[in-house]
Amino acid sequence: MIYIAVCGAGSCDEDTCGLAEELGREIGLRGAALVCGGLGGVMEAAARGAREAGALTIGILPGFEKSDANPYIQVPIVTGLSLSRNLVIVRTADAVIALPGAYGTLSEIALALKIGKPVIGINTWELGEDLIRARDAKDAVAKAIAAVSLKEKNISGKC
Amino acid sequence: MIYIAVCGAGSCDEDTCGLAEELGREIGLRGAALVCGGLGGVMEAAARGAREAGALTIGILPGFEKSDANPYIQVPIVTGLSLSRNLVIVRTADAVIALPGAYGTLSEIALALKIGKPVIGINTWELGEDLIRARDAKDAVAKAIAAVSLKEKNISGKC
Amino acid sequence: MIYIAVCGAGSCDEDTCGLAEELGREIGLRGAALVCGGLGGVMEAAARGAREAGALTIGILPGFEKSDANPYIQVPIVTGLSLSRNLVIVRTADAVIALPGAYGTLSEIALALKIGKPVIGINTWELGEDLIRARDAKDAVAKAIAAVSLKEKNISGKC
Amino acid sequence: MIYIAVCGAGSCDEDTCGLAEELGREIGLRGAALVCGGLGGVMEAAARGAREAGALTIGILPGFEKSDANPYIQVPIVTGLSLSRNLVIVRTADAVIALPGAYGTLSEIALALKIGKPVIGINTWELGEDLIRARDAKDAVAKAIAAVSLKEKNISGKC
Repeated sequence: MIYIAVCGAGSCDEDTCGLAEELGREIGLRGAALVCGGLGGVMEAAARGAREAGALTIGILPGFEKSDANPYIQVPIVTGLSLSRNLVIVRTADAVIALPGAYGTLSEIALALKIGKPVIGINTWELGEDLIRARDAKDAVAKAIAAVSLKEKNISGKC
Repeated sequence: MIYIAVCGAGSCDEDTCGLAEELGREIGLRGAALVCGGLGGVMEAAARGAREAGALTIGILPGFEKSDANPYIQVPIVTGLSLSRNLVIVRTADAVIALPGAYGTLSEIALALKIGKPVIGINTWELGEDLIRARDAKDAVAKAIAAVSLKEKNISGKC
Repeated sequence: MIYIAVCGAGSCDEDTCGLAEELGREIGLRGAALVCGGLGGVMEAAARGAREAGALTIGILPGFEKSDANPYIQVPIVTGLSLSRNLVIVRTADAVIALPGAYGTLSEIALALKIGKPVIGINTWELGEDLIRARDAKDAVAKAIAAVSLKEKNISGKC
Repeated sequence: MIYIAVCGAGSCDEDTCGLAEELGREIGLRGAALVCGGLGGVMEAAARGAREAGALTIGILPGFEKSDANPYIQVPIVTGLSLSRNLVIVRTADAVIALPGAYGTLSEIALALKIGKPVIGINTWELGEDLIRARDAKDAVAKAIAAVSLKEKNISGKC
């Protein structure tokens, strides 16, 4: 199963929350699973959308308690690693979709690109051509899945 | 849902593997989920048993690839943290069951006791009374679930 | 003592290496200590410059062996955390100076800004006004020290 | 330079504190450096002794602030990794000396033995023959240095 991370701010305005929820739903409709930081804002909206569409939701928590997870997280992972958990999110995901967010989101984009994971951005940091741009939720999830498939094909093509 | 970690060596003799598989099955029969290190030996046997009984299986991997997980892991978490992932296992679990194992297993027992998680041991390190002893798989899982319930009751009793 | 991190690529062209070495020297001349990732490229050049000026050099290594450190590191810290060690670098530093580098460097900038550490950039990523720009090594170290002093003054002013 | 970790409880009775301080002093007299968790109790007493004897003292802190370090730490490393910093301590050290302590100390012993570091114990957990026993501070530091030298000889003998 393809795991798609959705990254963004821990609190969000109506538009961004709406977009995150739509992303979660689209992830579920496409048969993928959602990975996120497990807390509020973009993380919660994406998990809510994913659950509506029946997707598996995984929350990689920075703190020490399972109960820190938002109510839409099915599998809470308790790291106690604070911000270092961002790298666990992007390692666990096959692709990362980044929404508007501040430096936490930027760190997730940078770490994902550093380790060679496809990153799709919607209205987020402008970082050059390695960051794939998408215009909406449907487009973003389609591009995430295509990028993962292409990468797997390239890897198996090398064997 | 209660998460129970099963810890033990990355390769195991027939008896220990059999016990690990039975533990996994018992975890599933009791409606709990399995958390483990996601690799071979005790981790694989426990995951196989858990899947037979329909339980959710979570593997907290030390390395960099999802494909490091044994085939019975449903949710692979890719940490890239090497041995530091042991602490993520015990933080994510509500209780820990320890089987025969060497110093990796001992570190998981010690870390779990350090952070106040119930630890149940079968034929493992002797560490005094904080480590609850069990005689077989059924007994171990029953004691794990009882310890988690007792702890939750004590916490809510304090409110 | 003020700890200044110098971040940049693990291999560097002559200009960037020269700048890194000058930064290390300037850090030493100003009585600060150098924190870096402990490996080659920018990390090695900065450590060489810092040692020339008698500064303490700390290398936060991603791998498992002290011997991974470049020869100018006096205090090698062995994390075994791979890329997660980037956050240990920026947490240990009082200020971060970022040189040209790819996504690893960007992740260090983002993590530092996320946790509120002053970041000074020379010829590196353009990220808006939170990233303080410097024109050369002397200017960068002066701005790093000024930012740390200002921050400490603000904190003590709050008490 | 040989790095020796001293592990033990975060608060200690007079006897254990005295022993920790003597260990720190002996580490300094033998020309080694001290690595510890940087906080109070055994960590502070060992660092005080080491500083008296002019040794370098490194504190691998679990929290987010340099100022968490005890006053005898020269090089504070700020990990923000909570208990996961224990593994950074034992990876950074060439040998580990364990004093009386609870499960945190036990986890450090287990992690050190797991990754093949020599561990010397005084009045601490009984774990079988891999744990080298020492009768006092002088004996412990001598055995730590001998074990590191033996290990290095074996490694170079293999080449």
